[in-house]
Amino acid sequence: MPTPQERLAQLRGNEDAPASVASKYNKRFRVGVIGSGNWGTAVAKIVAENCLEKPYLFHRDVKMWVREEEVSDMKLTDIINSYHENVKYLPEVTLPFNLFAEPDIRKVADGADLLVINLPHQFLGSVCDQMKGIDFSKSSAISCLKGINVSADGVELLHDVVEKKLGLHCGVLSGANIASEVARERWSETTIAFPLPSWYQQGDADDNLIKELFYRPYFHVQVSDDVCGASISGALKNVVALGAGLVEGAGWGDNAKAAVMRRGLLEVIMFGNVFFPGKCRPETFTTESAGVADLITSCAGGRNVKVGRAFARTGKPLEVIEKELLNGQSAQGIITGREVMELLTATKKEDEFPLLGAIYDIVHNKLHISNLPERIAD
Amino acid sequence: MPTPQERLAQLRGNEDAPASVASKYNKRFRVGVIGSGNWGTAVAKIVAENCLEKPYLFHRDVKMWVREEEVSDMKLTDIINSYHENVKYLPEVTLPFNLFAEPDIRKVADGADLLVINLPHQFLGSVCDQMKGIDFSKSSAISCLKGINVSADGVELLHDVVEKKLGLHCGVLSGANIASEVARERWSETTIAFPLPSWYQQGDADDNLIKELFYRPYFHVQVSDDVCGASISGALKNVVALGAGLVEGAGWGDNAKAAVMRRGLLEVIMFGNVFFPGKCRPETFTTESAGVADLITSCAGGRNVKVGRAFARTGKPLEVIEKELLNGQSAQGIITGREVMELLTATKKEDEFPLLGAIYDIVHNKLHISNLPERIAD
Repeated sequence: MPTPQERLAQLRGNEDAPASVASKYNKRFRVGVIGSGNWGTAVAKIVAENCLEKPYLFHRDVKMWVREEEVSDMKLTDIINSYHENVKYLPEVTLPFNLFAEPDIRKVADGADLLVINLPHQFLGSVCDQMKGIDFSKSSAISCLKGINVSADGVELLHDVVEKKLGLHCGVLSGANIASEVARERWSETTIAFPLPSWYQQGDADDNLIKELFYRPYFHVQVSDDVCGASISGALKNVVALGAGLVEGAGWGDNAKAAVMRRGLLEVIMFGNVFFPGKCRPETFTTESAGVADLITSCAGGRNVKVGRAFARTGKPLEVIEKELLNGQSAQGIITGREVMELLTATKKEDEFPLLGAIYDIVHNKLHISNLPERIAD
Repeated sequence: MPTPQERLAQLRGNEDAPASVASKYNKRFRVGVIGSGNWGTAVAKIVAENCLEKPYLFHRDVKMWVREEEVSDMKLTDIINSYHENVKYLPEVTLPFNLFAEPDIRKVADGADLLVINLPHQFLGSVCDQMKGIDFSKSSAISCLKGINVSADGVELLHDVVEKKLGLHCGVLSGANIASEVARERWSETTIAFPLPSWYQQGDADDNLIKELFYRPYFHVQVSDDVCGASISGALKNVVALGAGLVEGAGWGDNAKAAVMRRGLLEVIMFGNVFFPGKCRPETFTTESAGVADLITSCAGGRNVKVGRAFARTGKPLEVIEKELLNGQSAQGIITGREVMELLTATKKEDEFPLLGAIYDIVHNKLHISNLPERIAD
């Protein structure tokens, strides 16, 4: 028996009906979304809106993988599909009818031409495992993941993890995008770095494809080629935002917060230079939405600021604060801060990143915040 | 008859008593401050603190020129000298006893080795006129001025105006420095660009002198050589902050504000490239306190944000808002925005600076703010 949403979609017409406008590409793209948290759902809404508006480019229906959970006495997928709202992670925002919550990840991934991957960093490994064996040789992905992977082998960016684990060509979307604002269609910019895969042939796609999928009147897209820079910036700004929250919690004022953000920007640029030499452009950090603008908006009032602020005020362990404040969501700056410190320690480069080190020491090693200015003094 | 403050200073000892530590320079420097507004008084406090602490480098007493005015039934200079507080422009902050308010500008300027100039842009011309004829051939100045001068001859930076009008070698201090926070000794950073004057000889001074004068435990100084970049950034960030205020007033959220700040940073960099080619370094804008950090703190909550916010909410003329909100202080973004637009129009470069143009059109030409995103879209 079809679900109410499937029935509604049927009633609204055949999603694969021939489009009245010819596509400029060889085929229509089927889009899937992996992940349905706050940001995951907001981005799913964007792509579903565009798939609905541009039947000549995209298949109408978009499946979004939802890690099944119960909310009150209903499954979250059933709630989303019946009420068009992700009441748990993006409440009070109506989702397009052509966005389908799907608990079986393989049903989303298999057959998708373009996969939007948008998960908390810590779930990436297991989620990739669940998609193992799917043939992605003619698919592409856009990673909205924020983080880095550090191991004995060194540091990996998360879009590289996707490429390696799944053989799935992967770009990056990152920008000044507080999810709740984007979801409410308040004007934002973003950066998408998506070099076309080498196996694309004439007519398969061009640089404009990705803009067609993500651009909305309220969501402006800058296309970049710096996958590495966008990825690093998106990961590390969360650690800087944790630091900005510490400064706020200590009651130090806007000058101090700006000083931490400035130093943070410098260390993000340096992180790129030191660990990915020649692979990212400094301008990405200083002039793109994925760079300085994301840093600014994340430090203005994202989850990491909230956690840092509460830590400075209460001294409670970060994980406790995260649970108390974030309703099941995670503050990625905590986990990324740990990975960064592991990397800096292993490579003996702590001294080159005094702000990142000081933030770590404040939240994990009982360093008093009053030491911060001297630690990061030029 | 000595004033109470002069008497106090006498009682505290001879300000020119030999210092117990030898100076590394050929002589002690006498420091004067021109300007006593909010920021003027805050910086005067800093230099007076250092002059008091370092008698081997500086003469103890610092004169600050105050444009005389009555507050209740007292002269402002008398209030400052009797109560050590600038009740009009920096209330509730105690000033060092060795900082003297002086209504006669020539008594401050004449004989000063280092002059800190800190005025609203619009008073610079007449203030320079009042100092005409003074021999500044062996003096130097630090400009804390924010603005540009546009005329039929083109655009001038304000420290250049000082140099030309007075024959006074002039550097620039600019940074993420909301005055009230600095005055309350909340940690801040700043950038000082002060190339030594060509006539300095061995032992006259070195690059450290300026740090000795301005560095405080709560006020960290980065020394730079980019006078031009620091000056441009300090001027134009006020216009961007006006734009950030508009976005706030329209209720658009942090992503939108970050987008405006990002675009603003780009246009500030471009302004340097276009109008002062080869004279400033892009890194000043993106990595110094005078650059991105000042932009951030100014857009967080300075005077220009307040004015922009109120304009978006009420539509009242800027000058009316300025009077209502700022207690006699000025929002420099208004006047600088006008100068910038005059320059862009005269040089037919409006199209290259869409954000600066849009901000001007919104506040002066009834452009609705809803047009802003399209106007600045890449």
